[in-house]
Amino acid sequence: MSGRSTHRPELGRRLVAELIGTGLLVTVVVGSGIAAQRLSPHETGLQLLENSTATVFGLGVLILLFGPVSGAHFNPVVSAADWALGRHAGTGLTGRDVAGYVAAQLIGGIAGAVLANAMFDLAPLQIATTTRASTGLWLGEIVATAGLVAVIFALARTGRASLSAATVAGYIGAAYWFTSSTSFANPAVTVGRMFSDTFAGIAPASAPGFVLAQLIGALLGAGLVLVLYPDAGHAAGAVVTPSAGSPSRTGVT
Amino acid sequence: MSGRSTHRPELGRRLVAELIGTGLLVTVVVGSGIAAQRLSPHETGLQLLENSTATVFGLGVLILLFGPVSGAHFNPVVSAADWALGRHAGTGLTGRDVAGYVAAQLIGGIAGAVLANAMFDLAPLQIATTTRASTGLWLGEIVATAGLVAVIFALARTGRASLSAATVAGYIGAAYWFTSSTSFANPAVTVGRMFSDTFAGIAPASAPGFVLAQLIGALLGAGLVLVLYPDAGHAAGAVVTPSAGSPSRTGVT
Amino acid sequence: MSGRSTHRPELGRRLVAELIGTGLLVTVVVGSGIAAQRLSPHETGLQLLENSTATVFGLGVLILLFGPVSGAHFNPVVSAADWALGRHAGTGLTGRDVAGYVAAQLIGGIAGAVLANAMFDLAPLQIATTTRASTGLWLGEIVATAGLVAVIFALARTGRASLSAATVAGYIGAAYWFTSSTSFANPAVTVGRMFSDTFAGIAPASAPGFVLAQLIGALLGAGLVLVLYPDAGHAAGAVVTPSAGSPSRTGVT
Amino acid sequence: MSGRSTHRPELGRRLVAELIGTGLLVTVVVGSGIAAQRLSPHETGLQLLENSTATVFGLGVLILLFGPVSGAHFNPVVSAADWALGRHAGTGLTGRDVAGYVAAQLIGGIAGAVLANAMFDLAPLQIATTTRASTGLWLGEIVATAGLVAVIFALARTGRASLSAATVAGYIGAAYWFTSSTSFANPAVTVGRMFSDTFAGIAPASAPGFVLAQLIGALLGAGLVLVLYPDAGHAAGAVVTPSAGSPSRTGVT
Repeated sequence: MSGRSTHRPELGRRLVAELIGTGLLVTVVVGSGIAAQRLSPHETGLQLLENSTATVFGLGVLILLFGPVSGAHFNPVVSAADWALGRHAGTGLTGRDVAGYVAAQLIGGIAGAVLANAMFDLAPLQIATTTRASTGLWLGEIVATAGLVAVIFALARTGRASLSAATVAGYIGAAYWFTSSTSFANPAVTVGRMFSDTFAGIAPASAPGFVLAQLIGALLGAGLVLVLYPDAGHAAGAVVTPSAGSPSRTGVT
Repeated sequence: MSGRSTHRPELGRRLVAELIGTGLLVTVVVGSGIAAQRLSPHETGLQLLENSTATVFGLGVLILLFGPVSGAHFNPVVSAADWALGRHAGTGLTGRDVAGYVAAQLIGGIAGAVLANAMFDLAPLQIATTTRASTGLWLGEIVATAGLVAVIFALARTGRASLSAATVAGYIGAAYWFTSSTSFANPAVTVGRMFSDTFAGIAPASAPGFVLAQLIGALLGAGLVLVLYPDAGHAAGAVVTPSAGSPSRTGVT
Repeated sequence: MSGRSTHRPELGRRLVAELIGTGLLVTVVVGSGIAAQRLSPHETGLQLLENSTATVFGLGVLILLFGPVSGAHFNPVVSAADWALGRHAGTGLTGRDVAGYVAAQLIGGIAGAVLANAMFDLAPLQIATTTRASTGLWLGEIVATAGLVAVIFALARTGRASLSAATVAGYIGAAYWFTSSTSFANPAVTVGRMFSDTFAGIAPASAPGFVLAQLIGALLGAGLVLVLYPDAGHAAGAVVTPSAGSPSRTGVT
Repeated sequence: MSGRSTHRPELGRRLVAELIGTGLLVTVVVGSGIAAQRLSPHETGLQLLENSTATVFGLGVLILLFGPVSGAHFNPVVSAADWALGRHAGTGLTGRDVAGYVAAQLIGGIAGAVLANAMFDLAPLQIATTTRASTGLWLGEIVATAGLVAVIFALARTGRASLSAATVAGYIGAAYWFTSSTSFANPAVTVGRMFSDTFAGIAPASAPGFVLAQLIGALLGAGLVLVLYPDAGHAAGAVVTPSAGSPSRTGVT
């Protein structure tokens, strides 16, 4: 435990990283959605291709930019899973860390939508009106979030955290398309996307259903990790989770 | 030999990985095909670009997610080639392993199509009606499968299994386009795609021709590996095939 | 200091690298813009997707091609930030180096536009007429440049300069879409793009606003680096900035 | 010299690799061009995007598949530059090797076009009728080939040959768009593309102009390498050119 605090940046700096990182992630998702909608007005498929391509690149870069500071969670269910899966080995976030992370992610997510609106000369403060609710969409969010959590912690448990940026970005690039919900897979991003009535927006009334599905998906994903990599606990001391660490431990060497 | 069983996860866990992994691969292919068909209804080329892009990302991620457990074959001809090419050095799957892998892949492939149908609010159980049969298409499948098998085992025989995820995914991204058949190249995925009457579907009557072509292609691909890398057998003890191993051996280090 | 001059190529060769590299970067941006405009005349979104995809690939390759010689800045604000952030540790460019770099970048940028015009059988010398001016666009340039500077120096300060090519290219691929300004983020490229009245052009009257926004963004980006990675100074001796070095230090190993 | 022959596979096997590799490269270019033309009949830009995306993936994979055997030149000007730039250090191909490589590349290139035609149920033997001739196009080929040669040998001279697959593929992905000629940049591929009267075809009467421009470009590219990396000769003994070697030397480790 004392070793951990030695290697991990102080909480304040990590919260700054989570706040700005989650904010920019929402800026990428919402901003590229606005650009796609304006430039390809008659082709929804092309809009989503432009939106998903920009998100793949943006998410990968943000993980590299903020990862060495905070682990680049940008996602409350990832922070919670980090705590849950790392409890026994003492390698995950503490409960207090998780609370701070989630607050920073939510505030950042909202600010990121406002920034995207402002850049595109739209009213900075607005509420989305796009309803997203159906059994299929909720199933999509369950699958999307389960896969995301499984990928992140499978890499962490097998000493491949240095591949997280490319792999998580690639996963989202696939999940935009193979799930029916375009893979929000993130409660903080879901909340942020409530604040832009554009391509990527989600009506506040639809958000609780999405978040509930994401929580179920996160549980399934964590379960899959335990089935696939049950005894990787002792590797935890080296490189466990994307939050574990100083640059020299999570950086690609 | 004894050393092999020491490093490889128990068979049950490997079969779970092959079942879920093949399932999700079919979910990616079929699901992104449905999304593409709905969002770009008037442009078949754009549909295939969306479908192939999602598959590149999804396949690469699935190999990283399941590779350290089962080798991430997701494909009966890859499992069979693993047995055939690794027999002499004692490094491949056993015959019994292959039987289990193929069964898991077939069950997973069907389940993956059902999941895709359900996510998109379609009837979960359905049979494809798209006929895919011509000399050119069969030649396409032969070429597609030969290339896939050659790529996988060329990497394995030259100690570059850590590049498998990106390379195999990239190969499929090319083969979707340069072959006439959009590169099924996988009997389990072919069977799974019989169960969704959507963009990626294949009528059951067309499946045997595709599978036969895939078997011929796999033989050609294995032959090409033996021509290009004939004496790589002694390297087999280190990192032979994508199935060889524990995380520390197949993981990217 | 003496150690630095030992490892770094002589200034003349570095200036050649910056001149040709910045030139080819503008050729990539402008040339692919012309091709996109001609081949996809009715779809602005598709034009930008073609333009941004080509730029991602081209920029990544140019960084790998010229990086070991000059650091592959291709951008006056990157060279200036390299000087500012490396002053204390004595690892950045000198003030005289920066002056040479900026001159080479500006000359190269203009020459690159002329080459693109000539390749596409257009008048080699021409002045763009596309007005790009609004609060949103300037905010876009601030965000774009802040992110670019933060990414470059975050990698440098954490010993991950070998990831610069892929990461910087990916960043631009996202920023083309998530910013409102399509992310010029570079005064030399902005000047170069004044010399082609095509897809990527910018009217000279709009350039000062963009450059001013880029300078503000660079300051913000450097500030973010100092917040996220404040005490990475002592790592500077090893691999500090993309300009630091001989092939063996910045090359991917 | 004796050391070289020890590490390099025998010439026959290398020629098989060059023949099949160049063949499959032309199959990728021509085949994906046919698919693009059929599936996106009304959008030339989208056709080229599909064609270039497939080529990026296919070329990268082919370099990884055949590189450890022959160096994966697939291109007469690359083989010639390998000889010219490696003469002094004794690390390049011999003159006799070059003759064999070029013959294998030309035969393979033609066979690859025939295979693509056959897969798409077209007449296997056909001659292209697309005229490609103008000052701008020739300038495009000069730039395209200069960049290609510079990239390949810059990586080789700085010990980064393991990045060749991704970098060369990415370069072509950019050059398809930023040059006016869509970057043939390869005499063997140019000859192969004479044999398919489809999207990627070139009329035989236009081929000599393209090949001449490619030769000029190769000279310029080699010159740029000598300017940027003049004294990298002594590194040649380790990892010089993509043709240098056994798997353990050119493989990604």
